[in-house]
Amino acid sequence: MVSNPLAPSWLTVPADANELPARVWPATARRDDDGVVAIGGVRLTDLAAEFGTPLYVIDEADVRARASRTLAAFAAAARAAGTTATVYYAGKAFLSTEVARWVAEAGLNIDTCSAGELAVALAAGVDAARLGLHGNNKSLAEIDRAVAVGLGTIVIDSEQEIARVADAAARHGRRQRVRLRVNSGVHAHTHEFLATAREDQKFGIPLGDVERLVAEIRGHESLEFVGLHCHIGSQIFGVGGFGESASRLLEVHARLLAGGPVPELNLGGGFGIAYTVADDPTDIEVLAEHIVGTVAAQCAARGIPVPHLAFEPGRSIVGGAGVSLYELGTTKPVEVSLDDETAATRLYASVDGGMSDNARYALYQAAYSVRLASRASAAEPVLVRIAGKHCESGDIVVDADYLPGDVAPGDLLAVPATGAYCWSLSSRYNYLPRPAVVAVRDGAARVIVRGETEEDLLSHDTGVTP
Amino acid sequence: MVSNPLAPSWLTVPADANELPARVWPATARRDDDGVVAIGGVRLTDLAAEFGTPLYVIDEADVRARASRTLAAFAAAARAAGTTATVYYAGKAFLSTEVARWVAEAGLNIDTCSAGELAVALAAGVDAARLGLHGNNKSLAEIDRAVAVGLGTIVIDSEQEIARVADAAARHGRRQRVRLRVNSGVHAHTHEFLATAREDQKFGIPLGDVERLVAEIRGHESLEFVGLHCHIGSQIFGVGGFGESASRLLEVHARLLAGGPVPELNLGGGFGIAYTVADDPTDIEVLAEHIVGTVAAQCAARGIPVPHLAFEPGRSIVGGAGVSLYELGTTKPVEVSLDDETAATRLYASVDGGMSDNARYALYQAAYSVRLASRASAAEPVLVRIAGKHCESGDIVVDADYLPGDVAPGDLLAVPATGAYCWSLSSRYNYLPRPAVVAVRDGAARVIVRGETEEDLLSHDTGVTP
Repeated sequence: MVSNPLAPSWLTVPADANELPARVWPATARRDDDGVVAIGGVRLTDLAAEFGTPLYVIDEADVRARASRTLAAFAAAARAAGTTATVYYAGKAFLSTEVARWVAEAGLNIDTCSAGELAVALAAGVDAARLGLHGNNKSLAEIDRAVAVGLGTIVIDSEQEIARVADAAARHGRRQRVRLRVNSGVHAHTHEFLATAREDQKFGIPLGDVERLVAEIRGHESLEFVGLHCHIGSQIFGVGGFGESASRLLEVHARLLAGGPVPELNLGGGFGIAYTVADDPTDIEVLAEHIVGTVAAQCAARGIPVPHLAFEPGRSIVGGAGVSLYELGTTKPVEVSLDDETAATRLYASVDGGMSDNARYALYQAAYSVRLASRASAAEPVLVRIAGKHCESGDIVVDADYLPGDVAPGDLLAVPATGAYCWSLSSRYNYLPRPAVVAVRDGAARVIVRGETEEDLLSHDTGVTP
Repeated sequence: MVSNPLAPSWLTVPADANELPARVWPATARRDDDGVVAIGGVRLTDLAAEFGTPLYVIDEADVRARASRTLAAFAAAARAAGTTATVYYAGKAFLSTEVARWVAEAGLNIDTCSAGELAVALAAGVDAARLGLHGNNKSLAEIDRAVAVGLGTIVIDSEQEIARVADAAARHGRRQRVRLRVNSGVHAHTHEFLATAREDQKFGIPLGDVERLVAEIRGHESLEFVGLHCHIGSQIFGVGGFGESASRLLEVHARLLAGGPVPELNLGGGFGIAYTVADDPTDIEVLAEHIVGTVAAQCAARGIPVPHLAFEPGRSIVGGAGVSLYELGTTKPVEVSLDDETAATRLYASVDGGMSDNARYALYQAAYSVRLASRASAAEPVLVRIAGKHCESGDIVVDADYLPGDVAPGDLLAVPATGAYCWSLSSRYNYLPRPAVVAVRDGAARVIVRGETEEDLLSHDTGVTP
């Protein structure tokens, strides 16, 4: 079949529009003999019947496996470099008490960036010593609470925060472990990285101020400086940015050793995932080996010990393990003019969710793929755009993919790779209730986050009588 | 003062960085003698002390006045053209029972686009006959409920919906008034408009299909066709797009008269507001006169009666009446390289909210302005970027404005023109609770939407014991 001229250049017509590419789908995703997609041994038709749509579905075994694999990769690379590594799960990607328990059981620590995320991790029973707290503008209450519960490390993000954390720690009679976040000037985009003296963004402090601020931190009895932190971006496919950033940090790190111990180095996260088959992220083992190897080589060249290393992946742990399930409501072929004489047709297929449950196209023009979930079909594929039901023309879930041409209202559609930053960023736009999150594993499904009801939506309106 | 080279070209250094430009601020906004900003006679420092920050503040008198002025403008223009006009408030901009009551008391009808919005309007006591229902993918349940409660009009958006609405109406023994939404090919951007045969978007049906589908609607006993509908975009400053779109619709409208009555024409909304002083939207009276005048002239030329006209503003009713109030937490001057030899400094000022309470910069790179709210200052203005507290570098509330250079942690900052599409699009990203909405009027403040608590955030997590 010839590709539709409206399709983006990276999108090819699939040989089989029923296939579930392993790179994009959760590990346990399968199409049953009757064509129904199952995840974790649970048929998506059964999930829709029991829990309704839209629905977030998360493959528990896959999350656990990705967490374990990530930790193993960094541990092995660290061992080879004569050091150790900690992996923090970046809770901002998707946090619930269940997910916190899964990753903690896999041996990961958890990074939080607000009192709310902290509360979830603590409610999950994760030891506070295994938690981190990030944020460019932590409130005094957040800092106080983090110190009070015995948080493992707080990442200081500005000069102003040093005294705030020190004061809170002194008040609670604690010596708080802290990192200092650095704005290294390296910002890695998907396939390249920019490198300037300092990036034009809100996080971190410039390399040139590090020594002065670490001295200030060390001057506080109530603070224990454990090392520098940087984070170079999101959804990164290449390895170059990580090496460049590590190199810049190690130059300062080495100088800091003159003033006291610097036991750790935290290089953040940002490891990319495949949202579509066109995405080809680096395997985590390769990434770990490259980053840790770069650090080890730099340390050897500088004659300093390789510090304990820490990393903070979020998306790469949960992103690929999640799928959004929708029911198709309306279809509309739209003829689009290509020039004065020719036109092509795009099929708009509108589902019962949209930018409220997946804001990533609206926010970042993020690409996703889509498959028929309730049946297989041999119909010739057509170019589709999966739109939501919001009153906004930019309300798109999947900008472009091919689906069997007989796709019709009532079909269930599944969008893979929605495990990260979909529920997290979800809104109630147009008063659509936020969908439930269901975990599937070994043939069983259970709700881990309940969906919202109309009563929930109206419950804070002071003009509504309960 | 010389402007900062990092500032966008439209932004000029204010002569007085304490001024509250009338074009951007709510009608009742004033700076008290001690420098504190008050809205509706209530000091923002008092609001922060009583309700905390972040906080949405809405000027009740201003919303009522904008609603009344809009209705008066269209009524006068319609009267001059020998017809009448209805104004629907587009609830998607911001809907709560209070706001629904305010606009209904001003004589406006209300447009909803989901069961949830419908529920709010009904809970406000607004007569169902004064409500409309929009949506490219209304669920069968939404259609059924709308028909059951006696909704004024349903805007049919696709061929598939004709039978769905007809069936629901037949089932309830009602004759449902319906409009047909047309994709006219006109899409108006802020200062220009594109015009193609059909726009590449999900809404409406093409002009070429209108006659066939209206015939189908007329063939259903349970449906009453009232007219065509179109909506050409959002935040439109010029008048040209409205005229062009009306012209295209009237050509078909005229032909439809041969098959039966076409009493109405609904030209949607999209009227722009000033987010910053650089924005210069057309006055609503001028807009109304132009649009209605164009329709009247076209009808005269075609020898057809001028239909009853309907319009659907949302943003222009509530947008300018709302202000977001934040407390500043951290400041950070960031030196940005302009070239190899020169650099300029941008002050990052981070507040206690962010993209969770105002997603419009993240979504649309929308421009906003900011002012010190808790005091006035004569300090030399500096270029600031107001960032939020989310763990995301794109978390920006105000991309660029000038604030007095002594701005410091603890200051209250107010961002005007946030009455539309801020609360509506708000999320709980990073587990930040959604702020309360407080209405101010005649020196009194009252919560119209309660803010969320940590308990609210965790209440749907099945692993949390209540």
